[in-house]
Amino acid sequence: MMSSSKVYATYRVQTPISLELAAEMIATEQSTGTFVHVPGETDELRALHRATVERVVQTGSATSPALPGSRGAKNEIVTEYQEGEVTVSFPYHNMGASIPNLLAAVAGNLYELSQLSGIRLMDIEVPEEFFDRYKGPKFGISGTRQLAGVESGPIIGTIVKPSIGLSPDNLRMLVRELAASGIDFVKDDELNANPPYFPFAEKVRIVMEEIHRAADKTGKQMMYAFNITGDIEEMLTHHDEVLKSGGTCVMVSIHSVGWAALAYLRERCELPIHGHRNQWGWMTRHPLLGMEFRAYQKLCRLAGVDHLHTNGMDNKFYESNESVAKSVRDCLTAFGPGYDVMPVLSSGQWAASAVKSYQTLGTVDVIHLAGGGIMAHPDGVTAGVESMRQGWEAALSGQALDEYAKTHQELNRAIAKFGRA
Amino acid sequence: MMSSSKVYATYRVQTPISLELAAEMIATEQSTGTFVHVPGETDELRALHRATVERVVQTGSATSPALPGSRGAKNEIVTEYQEGEVTVSFPYHNMGASIPNLLAAVAGNLYELSQLSGIRLMDIEVPEEFFDRYKGPKFGISGTRQLAGVESGPIIGTIVKPSIGLSPDNLRMLVRELAASGIDFVKDDELNANPPYFPFAEKVRIVMEEIHRAADKTGKQMMYAFNITGDIEEMLTHHDEVLKSGGTCVMVSIHSVGWAALAYLRERCELPIHGHRNQWGWMTRHPLLGMEFRAYQKLCRLAGVDHLHTNGMDNKFYESNESVAKSVRDCLTAFGPGYDVMPVLSSGQWAASAVKSYQTLGTVDVIHLAGGGIMAHPDGVTAGVESMRQGWEAALSGQALDEYAKTHQELNRAIAKFGRA
Repeated sequence: MMSSSKVYATYRVQTPISLELAAEMIATEQSTGTFVHVPGETDELRALHRATVERVVQTGSATSPALPGSRGAKNEIVTEYQEGEVTVSFPYHNMGASIPNLLAAVAGNLYELSQLSGIRLMDIEVPEEFFDRYKGPKFGISGTRQLAGVESGPIIGTIVKPSIGLSPDNLRMLVRELAASGIDFVKDDELNANPPYFPFAEKVRIVMEEIHRAADKTGKQMMYAFNITGDIEEMLTHHDEVLKSGGTCVMVSIHSVGWAALAYLRERCELPIHGHRNQWGWMTRHPLLGMEFRAYQKLCRLAGVDHLHTNGMDNKFYESNESVAKSVRDCLTAFGPGYDVMPVLSSGQWAASAVKSYQTLGTVDVIHLAGGGIMAHPDGVTAGVESMRQGWEAALSGQALDEYAKTHQELNRAIAKFGRA
Repeated sequence: MMSSSKVYATYRVQTPISLELAAEMIATEQSTGTFVHVPGETDELRALHRATVERVVQTGSATSPALPGSRGAKNEIVTEYQEGEVTVSFPYHNMGASIPNLLAAVAGNLYELSQLSGIRLMDIEVPEEFFDRYKGPKFGISGTRQLAGVESGPIIGTIVKPSIGLSPDNLRMLVRELAASGIDFVKDDELNANPPYFPFAEKVRIVMEEIHRAADKTGKQMMYAFNITGDIEEMLTHHDEVLKSGGTCVMVSIHSVGWAALAYLRERCELPIHGHRNQWGWMTRHPLLGMEFRAYQKLCRLAGVDHLHTNGMDNKFYESNESVAKSVRDCLTAFGPGYDVMPVLSSGQWAASAVKSYQTLGTVDVIHLAGGGIMAHPDGVTAGVESMRQGWEAALSGQALDEYAKTHQELNRAIAKFGRA
């Protein structure tokens, strides 16, 4: 019953005590310990179940604490806070192959420890048993390409805008225009799932009618990620409606539903899961709190997400291009037995973003979403889509965007409206 | 179809731009807007669906940003960051009565806005429709008291320790001792749910045998919160096992399973749900990020949690007594149509904690958990439980703890071991 498998968790730590002691606190608190020694905490029990500090590396120090409430040893006044990285291993048999129970161990109460003035989960490694239990992305990159009919190159997409409030008729007209434009992918906004003024079933009916009508002409079916975020029965019902209507993708706000719901959906899902990470900002924005994307995207892939949002280059949000690039690389790094996930570039994207994306990321295995960048193109949606393709052509050919724009009208007009590349 | 109901969300904000403008950014981003004006964003659509800034109050300013990545208008150099509170209302019909979709609106992408250098959801108000959809705590305070056989006074409890690694025989002996001690409540540690070395079903069998045996003698059945945290089918199966065996409580790590799973469990649950908030630290510890407990406990109650952890006085974690007291008061403030939740005091608790708890909180409607404070009492578990009761007797009678301890041996011995009151 006692397996020798281990879970490894790496943390960025800031502490008013020594890094070694802080690491020991994490290991103790998250396995066998309490604040006093209790009867039954035998040497044998500790040997079998205790978490182990595997590595402690000092990286620097600070003169003030990143987070409130930390305390030095014996409440002495602290003038220096140690900063470093710490790896702790947890016996697999403490938790079993369970994402929820993994989280209680590697990301539970430890965020509240007063011995830490900063604590961020940077990376995790899970043993085989987790891959036996969780089957990961069902479609991944190749399955998505097949369903979207995009053999190579980036998958160009957009988001239905305005986010909220389109009437059935207006949504129909918009989807008709998009489907005719040759765009590969469209998604619902995360703010729009199943609002009372426009029930989900009606949305599916209208959107799929338009998609099928266009596909009959062009031979290519646009992938539409229907936002099925909701309570569990609602999610499954909506998935079934999309599937039955011939849709090819569902979208879920990961944090709105949670890990157990995501894994539950994956087991019953016949379509790629487009993973939206809204709320992720509050879990990662402070560099000494929460979780690093590297750890996060592994959990998402384990639970079965096929597409994962990473922000885009020069996005309108707080995230730096360097951070976005790291996230995309994390998504494209092998994990588990072929648990491939397709990174989704979005936020403030337009034709010119293609160049910086390709130069920085060096990959076309992305879903590249432009909302306003397509919808608000001065010559309409079709021109917006064309401008995105021209942006990628320029990027892949290595030509300067402005040069390329001279002979490509849609790109030229996009540059004139959205700014200089 | 268009209801006039609204959701209200109040935020603590820090921003390099004006508070008014920052509030407008939140309202726009989280309802009808994108980074450029798009066709279809008509005045009529905005009137029906736009979020509205209801209130802006300046509270202060700072010279450096709380979070990285914020940008001033036109990227100018910022020397002052405005701080304040902002209330935004969202049309109910934008999201419908759905916790997951509520979260996408009030706590979604806004945490990533570069116009904000600090953003924390402080409070929410939801309309009637949410209470129609979510039935809230099934047992609450009165239902818990009835099942635990504690008509009045605090519910005294402990946590199975060591957290991890007790063998079936050792757990049996421990539960036997606890059940004989007259303690009201015992819970699994959040680290211990269904580990491979000790399957859940066997735990239930052993624990309930001992609980029933003791109840046959004493007439009172100790409440045991079995940790059913896990994937969804596992959770439901484990709930059914507890129910079938005559158990009276289940425990769930709220963030490990997520909101949709919690609400799903509530609809199928015949027992009080003991809500463990591990991971909550990383969502709340930074004062200008994440969520305030006031908003959080409303979501928990809406989703159906009957007991909610709040930390305890002089806890071993980072949280101040002031913050704990606020949380307890939030839990005891009316919400919804009788959605009562019982606050759970824990972490570093022992007999003396009763005095400060009662003086500060002025209530006995608490579950008061002492892990080491009971388990590591020098005269054993029964004496540990007795010392906790004596602590509360002293608190309620207004006598000084040391005075009371002179005639109460178990309390006296607790003080000698765990420190001065």
